Amino acid sequence: MTPESIKQLAKLLSQLPSLGPRQATRLAFHIASLPKEDAVALSEAARAVARLTTCTNCFSLSESGDLCYICSDKRRDQTMVAVVEKETDMMTLEKTRKYTGRYLIIGDLPKDGILTAGHRKRLQYLKKSAPAGGFSEIILALSPTTYGDLNASILAQELRTTAQKITRLGRGIPTGGEIEFADEDTLENALKNRN
Amino acid sequence: MTPESIKQLAKLLSQLPSLGPRQATRLAFHIASLPKEDAVALSEAARAVARLTTCTNCFSLSESGDLCYICSDKRRDQTMVAVVEKETDMMTLEKTRKYTGRYLIIGDLPKDGILTAGHRKRLQYLKKSAPAGGFSEIILALSPTTYGDLNASILAQELRTTAQKITRLGRGIPTGGEIEFADEDTLENALKNRN
Repeated sequence: MTPESIKQLAKLLSQLPSLGPRQATRLAFHIASLPKEDAVALSEAARAVARLTTCTNCFSLSESGDLCYICSDKRRDQTMVAVVEKETDMMTLEKTRKYTGRYLIIGDLPKDGILTAGHRKRLQYLKKSAPAGGFSEIILALSPTTYGDLNASILAQELRTTAQKITRLGRGIPTGGEIEFADEDTLENALKNRN
Repeated sequence: MTPESIKQLAKLLSQLPSLGPRQATRLAFHIASLPKEDAVALSEAARAVARLTTCTNCFSLSESGDLCYICSDKRRDQTMVAVVEKETDMMTLEKTRKYTGRYLIIGDLPKDGILTAGHRKRLQYLKKSAPAGGFSEIILALSPTTYGDLNASILAQELRTTAQKITRLGRGIPTGGEIEFADEDTLENALKNRN
């Protein structure tokens, strides 16, 4: 008879993405075996993120009310948008410090090409918030995979009247990658984008 | 700039076994995006397991004070002990409903054959709590792997004067397993243990 509290924690953990029931059970037992203050710290941390709100402009998480720190930064270029699937993609782009526009977190995109009501709502908001004459550029910053390509063409179609230019991130050989092991498609793109 | 609360949750999650920093970050963002009541439920569940105590007899988790529900069950045979590495192993054995003795959770065993102070403390406790004349049997219920075999011989040596008989779980072809794909060692054991 596993303690009820372990079962409950394991059940909730197993509902998180990428955690299976066995791993969730092992994690629950591990958390139970932590020094009490560590388990309490974890509990507090989960509660703290529950207090975050959603930015009404880009739909990322916000610590400080309606607008996240990027959307409330007046120096960011409001005529340029990067559409990303998820927060972690936005973080990665921010780390380059080379992108100064705004974002739209569209949410995980489907594999069947059919946008959900949630995606449509965010696209609608983006269209409504476009400056007169449309955005100067919308970057569809989706991964260069089969599904990413499919979804990019769907989004490009949806947004065609919302921007003067719709682009995607450049493709090529990643820094540190070996030409020898690059696939043909990557090499073809690397040739095209040579500089 | 990732919200501080996300960073903190990701850091704590990444300290759990089997969770890497990237997966921890994704999980933290996911938890933040849950309906508020779901994140609070997860937080509550982590806090509830922090309230569990350690059974003073078998070292498993207890909901109700000093002794866990198995150790406080007077019908369990106190002359027989199953030594397991972890709680989940105990749970699996309990599911069979065929084992009626007590347990000792020894904790994850080392890969270098050197027992820690924690392991030694638990072994000492087991020796002290043995009935006069020793236990009738100690089952070293460790996985039949190289390290399990190594640790079983170390424990057998440590406990040689504590029990009349020291055994391990039987080896053979698992139910549903195909003879064709069984390795030689398993088959040899299956032949030896035929019944």
